[in-house]
Amino acid sequence: MDRAVHRLNQVLPANAVITDPQQLRTYECDGLASYRVTPAVVVLPETAEQVQEIVRICAEHELPFVARGSGTGLSGGALPSSDGVLIVTARMRRILEIDLANERAVVEPGVINLDVTKAVAADGYYFAPDPSSQQVCSVGGNVAENSGGAHCLKYGFTTHHILGLEVVTADGEVVELGGPAREAPGYDLLGAFIGSEGTLGVVTKITVRLMRKPESVQTLLAGFPSTDDAGAAVSAIIASGVTPAAIEMMDALSIEAAEQAVQCGYPDGAGAVLVVELDGPEAEVAHTFTEVERHCREHGAFEVRVAADETERANIWKGRKSAFAAVGRISPDYIVQDGVIPRTALSEVLSRIAQLSAETGVRVANVFHAGDGNLHPLVLFDGSQPGATEQAEAVSGRIMELCLEHGGSITGEHGVGADKVKYMGRMFTEDDLDTMQRVRCAFDPAGICNPGKVFPTPRLCGEVPGRRHGVHPLVEAGLADQF
Amino acid sequence: MDRAVHRLNQVLPANAVITDPQQLRTYECDGLASYRVTPAVVVLPETAEQVQEIVRICAEHELPFVARGSGTGLSGGALPSSDGVLIVTARMRRILEIDLANERAVVEPGVINLDVTKAVAADGYYFAPDPSSQQVCSVGGNVAENSGGAHCLKYGFTTHHILGLEVVTADGEVVELGGPAREAPGYDLLGAFIGSEGTLGVVTKITVRLMRKPESVQTLLAGFPSTDDAGAAVSAIIASGVTPAAIEMMDALSIEAAEQAVQCGYPDGAGAVLVVELDGPEAEVAHTFTEVERHCREHGAFEVRVAADETERANIWKGRKSAFAAVGRISPDYIVQDGVIPRTALSEVLSRIAQLSAETGVRVANVFHAGDGNLHPLVLFDGSQPGATEQAEAVSGRIMELCLEHGGSITGEHGVGADKVKYMGRMFTEDDLDTMQRVRCAFDPAGICNPGKVFPTPRLCGEVPGRRHGVHPLVEAGLADQF
Repeated sequence: MDRAVHRLNQVLPANAVITDPQQLRTYECDGLASYRVTPAVVVLPETAEQVQEIVRICAEHELPFVARGSGTGLSGGALPSSDGVLIVTARMRRILEIDLANERAVVEPGVINLDVTKAVAADGYYFAPDPSSQQVCSVGGNVAENSGGAHCLKYGFTTHHILGLEVVTADGEVVELGGPAREAPGYDLLGAFIGSEGTLGVVTKITVRLMRKPESVQTLLAGFPSTDDAGAAVSAIIASGVTPAAIEMMDALSIEAAEQAVQCGYPDGAGAVLVVELDGPEAEVAHTFTEVERHCREHGAFEVRVAADETERANIWKGRKSAFAAVGRISPDYIVQDGVIPRTALSEVLSRIAQLSAETGVRVANVFHAGDGNLHPLVLFDGSQPGATEQAEAVSGRIMELCLEHGGSITGEHGVGADKVKYMGRMFTEDDLDTMQRVRCAFDPAGICNPGKVFPTPRLCGEVPGRRHGVHPLVEAGLADQF
Repeated sequence: MDRAVHRLNQVLPANAVITDPQQLRTYECDGLASYRVTPAVVVLPETAEQVQEIVRICAEHELPFVARGSGTGLSGGALPSSDGVLIVTARMRRILEIDLANERAVVEPGVINLDVTKAVAADGYYFAPDPSSQQVCSVGGNVAENSGGAHCLKYGFTTHHILGLEVVTADGEVVELGGPAREAPGYDLLGAFIGSEGTLGVVTKITVRLMRKPESVQTLLAGFPSTDDAGAAVSAIIASGVTPAAIEMMDALSIEAAEQAVQCGYPDGAGAVLVVELDGPEAEVAHTFTEVERHCREHGAFEVRVAADETERANIWKGRKSAFAAVGRISPDYIVQDGVIPRTALSEVLSRIAQLSAETGVRVANVFHAGDGNLHPLVLFDGSQPGATEQAEAVSGRIMELCLEHGGSITGEHGVGADKVKYMGRMFTEDDLDTMQRVRCAFDPAGICNPGKVFPTPRLCGEVPGRRHGVHPLVEAGLADQF
């Protein structure tokens, strides 16, 4: 390791290599703080060339490396290796090119999501992916996790807004994936790379798609007696052929938490609220908005509030956007679960969650992207009570299983990371996992690129000796929470 | 080979194994008839299990195999191997499931593109990818080639309409890629597989996305003095934030050909016509259609004709849809080129093509998807004249280079196949190609899955002995045209 650090210091500028134990602690976890590992070294490159040098040094010394953007991920995808190098992209924050005529921009991986929009907003454009962390998360992190957001119902995930990537693979090659042309020959590895959670290489340049700001945006808040009624309204809206920009649902417990925290003034006594946003050309929005209002009322909405201006729109969103933090005020601890179910199973799964909550006495607040069936159940507990953490984890795990039983997915937008490795075998067959593992080995035969993440079973890459891909040693040993 | 044929006969129904030389000739080429190779065996499986058996037999006997849908491809992607098995999916034409609530259907690979739409049209749905061969081409072929069509400007390519695949990989494993959930964990290999031109495995089941038929469709035909004027109108339309369902352009020579063939009544004396189609909610279409008309007139359109009903709409499309065949009436032979350029380079590239045509005396008719810069220059020649074929090929090749010089792509929707292998090295670096090759080897270490297609340089897959991936021996020897 000493020789590697020496080499890193040679190729990087001053202050770009951190080995001081106190400073390294800053990087021991990402947004999932229950997993903590201190890296051996942290490096802060400023250019793609420096990233390439770092990866080459890692390859030469057989050191694992992990890339990290802003560290806001919620699945431990940027959890460091204790014997490896953490590549932090915080100094790669230049917007390299803005090409409005072709509706695209080229940015470095450390650029903050919202800064892309800020750079083009005056010209009427924006970058669509809007994870709730968009004021602090990096575009590189969005690429790694294929981040979603409230508006991915209409606009899709990060993968739908990336046109090309420059990446450094585990052997230090610089490779272009995708590119300016809408369809390129050869394999479309862009999609495979996006959402690969840092296991296929390090992104050094990102060509993002810019979107025209819609001419008109209309937002409503509707209060329903129950989540069932709200769910039926969601189905009716979608079935009518309307695709809102966002349909968010909150249940009684999350409304209560949000009300206490930010006094958002949501309808009294609502068992559920929907926030529905439409955007597009003025004429279209005006027309379809009336339809959406009608669907809400026909499915039991006892109050429908339409935002008359930007201030009222912000007020409607305030309750939704503060929900996660607000739950922290009514419970000492909580687990944010992230699962996907077919929209048609919404009612069934919500009632199963309610039943589970009643049986166990564990409170569950539901805040979620109703339009695309991406649930974010918040499982409340008090970690100071004996057994409470374990019980909450069991409930959270049971919710995950409900998603799987209904043909859904173990993650909608937070990723597998270190946290959900154990569920991968439930979602995929051995042959499916084999195929993914082969692709991983194709990119990283030595197994040094974010090892221990995403895939469940330790496997060898063909005849290549050395490190095994697979679960993180800490996760394997069940020790991840004890650091 | 005899033993393999014996085994194939054991696992397949009667009449599903063809070895009669006369019958084999039927399969010697796809839509690119300049490359012809007779396969050693043709098999016609009826189920995914039979495909798996066939692939296992091929793997066991180290026989190359090629999958073929309807054989309408234009790049030789389904060109057989003379020492291998051609897997024809013509008997796999069942629509297995239609799930309107979740807007999807599951089909077998041999299902004809248009038959998907026919099956759901009464319920107001359709399958969006619309290659001009949609009445005969198969969905499996669309997946292999990532087919486009006139409406991919707004609706994207096949890859945007496939939710999941069941595929048999080269070692006979059945693997699920993608699936019903909108975002799944692990690698998104669905995108890598779509458009891989049969080199990563054989598709056995396809989950397609169904779209709601738009409430309203409006179509106009505009005549311009020149392609430059028409190109400027296209830029103005796109820059205004409107995304038409289609913007098709034809130049004077293709208009002339279409007029002679189908008397489509396009504006007299036009140097170019645009066909612009808008679809969506009635209110939106009415509003934006006025804008599109205005942009056309402001950029020199001397005649704008709006389709008042379905018959007039069909008439407008008739000229465009017949253009390829029509050119066959004004020239004994022609090459269909397929390249992509950034939309902003349209005017420049078209004038370079005109210059090239003037210099060489080779006529070039331009018919293309103007909205997304996908050119289809038709290079006209008379193969009975000495040297004419070579000269036409040189002009066609030069057009390809123009696309590359302008940052475009060597294929927009027809694929690389056997035909454009030689250009791959112009578009990608060695490191880029290496990465793709590694992925290919990950799926097919023995190199038996559609060998000789897509990739230029013969390479070995690590230490695995056996067949080399790379150019088809016929292509390598320059003999492909001589069969």
